[in-house]
Amino acid sequence: MSTFFELVDSCSQKNNSLLCIGLDTDPDRIPQILQNDPDPIFSFNREIIDATSDLVSCYKPQIAYYGAIGAEESLQKSIEYAHKKGVPVLLDAKRGDIGSTAEKYAEEAFGRFSADAVTINPYMGLDSMQAFLDYTDKGIFILCRTSNPGGTDIQNLVLESGQKVYEHIAELASTKWNKNKNIALVVGATRPEEIADIRDITGNMMFLLPGVGAQGADIGRMMENGQGGGMIISSSRAIIYASSQSDFAEQARNAAQQTRAEINQNR
Amino acid sequence: MSTFFELVDSCSQKNNSLLCIGLDTDPDRIPQILQNDPDPIFSFNREIIDATSDLVSCYKPQIAYYGAIGAEESLQKSIEYAHKKGVPVLLDAKRGDIGSTAEKYAEEAFGRFSADAVTINPYMGLDSMQAFLDYTDKGIFILCRTSNPGGTDIQNLVLESGQKVYEHIAELASTKWNKNKNIALVVGATRPEEIADIRDITGNMMFLLPGVGAQGADIGRMMENGQGGGMIISSSRAIIYASSQSDFAEQARNAAQQTRAEINQNR
Repeated sequence: MSTFFELVDSCSQKNNSLLCIGLDTDPDRIPQILQNDPDPIFSFNREIIDATSDLVSCYKPQIAYYGAIGAEESLQKSIEYAHKKGVPVLLDAKRGDIGSTAEKYAEEAFGRFSADAVTINPYMGLDSMQAFLDYTDKGIFILCRTSNPGGTDIQNLVLESGQKVYEHIAELASTKWNKNKNIALVVGATRPEEIADIRDITGNMMFLLPGVGAQGADIGRMMENGQGGGMIISSSRAIIYASSQSDFAEQARNAAQQTRAEINQNR
Repeated sequence: MSTFFELVDSCSQKNNSLLCIGLDTDPDRIPQILQNDPDPIFSFNREIIDATSDLVSCYKPQIAYYGAIGAEESLQKSIEYAHKKGVPVLLDAKRGDIGSTAEKYAEEAFGRFSADAVTINPYMGLDSMQAFLDYTDKGIFILCRTSNPGGTDIQNLVLESGQKVYEHIAELASTKWNKNKNIALVVGATRPEEIADIRDITGNMMFLLPGVGAQGADIGRMMENGQGGGMIISSSRAIIYASSQSDFAEQARNAAQQTRAEINQNR
């Protein structure tokens, strides 16, 4: 059985792409043409996947969009469909809790939803992440330096050692915590200096870099600073909502092609 | 419309109780007698609620147990049933994400599940919590110092200011972040010295204190150190799984009565 990192590398090479499309599918933004469909959310995702599966390294559904409206079945079907098209799936869930509860969250991600990788939150410490890390073939993406402005509030606090909190997490994640070699990090594409800093600490570790597109990250600076290890570059709204009309899938493909090209120009 | 803090105070006074029962309902631990029920999870919770609703200040379902197996409907029905019995519900979800996603998580907790309060994770900063804080009548419980051993890994790091990370969060949560006066903190009952420390920082702020029962917190020391503000004292497994036989509800009641009495002896 292949690990997540093998799956994503293989898909990335086949499609000559580091792009990951975020499936943040909001029922209010689904084009009119699908509104009377029996499962508009799945149908929207299926059309996006059909239009882009040769352009990406993975898909990243954000579970909150499905959880808010009870669309777990649409999420399951979307993940299954991405797999059918040969693309691995990283479930963006940012879970974290005490051990007995973390086991249930891991079961949710890897059992119920059959995700190949998941994002988790490190604030509760190693024992809150262990149940995820025990899935040795999955990719476990720990939040390190997130793309939102408020990411500074806690992550950039300076410790008495001189390290920032996010640097300390990068260090632990690439050494002591990474016994199963299945850890990757979430590093906001919007913070180029911090990408370079985290790359220095972690060597060739895989990064998920969200923030391209609607959040406005500079692709050139991100690419320059992220070199030296794996990169999954995520864009959601700027691609899936490139058009709100019946040409949404075609326009999503165009946007994905442009983003992939811009990334590849800077590789 | 009453706020969560008013609801929980009222229920706490009526029942002379600071006890919150955690509904961490695991299908593998539901007694044989309910296994052929059409909805064993809801039926289990309903019997626990029937047996204890005069002994608690609120209920705290842990969403991971329901999410792992697609039992969201059982969770909805359980929350509705607790409300029918006059008891407010704190949904333990520990969510946290960028603003547009946080809105969806808040919709999940307060819209889909009709919870009165929710736990959230502060690692991504204030803008990741704002969508929750905007629900001014709800209780927003921010993780400060959690009950698990690994809680020290990040939360107890010492900053260059001399403050620990959890102390910094306690300070922000009780001042700058608390514009809507709806923040409360999660403070592990297993860490008495740290409860006192956080109480000093936050004044009379409400604390959720998990860790009594299966996690082994000392109730006397917790009570001594938590005085001076609101306390919601949570026990889950030690109460709901007090018996694995057909007398489970009766034994849950006995365990809840004992825990309430032990808490009240120390008030």
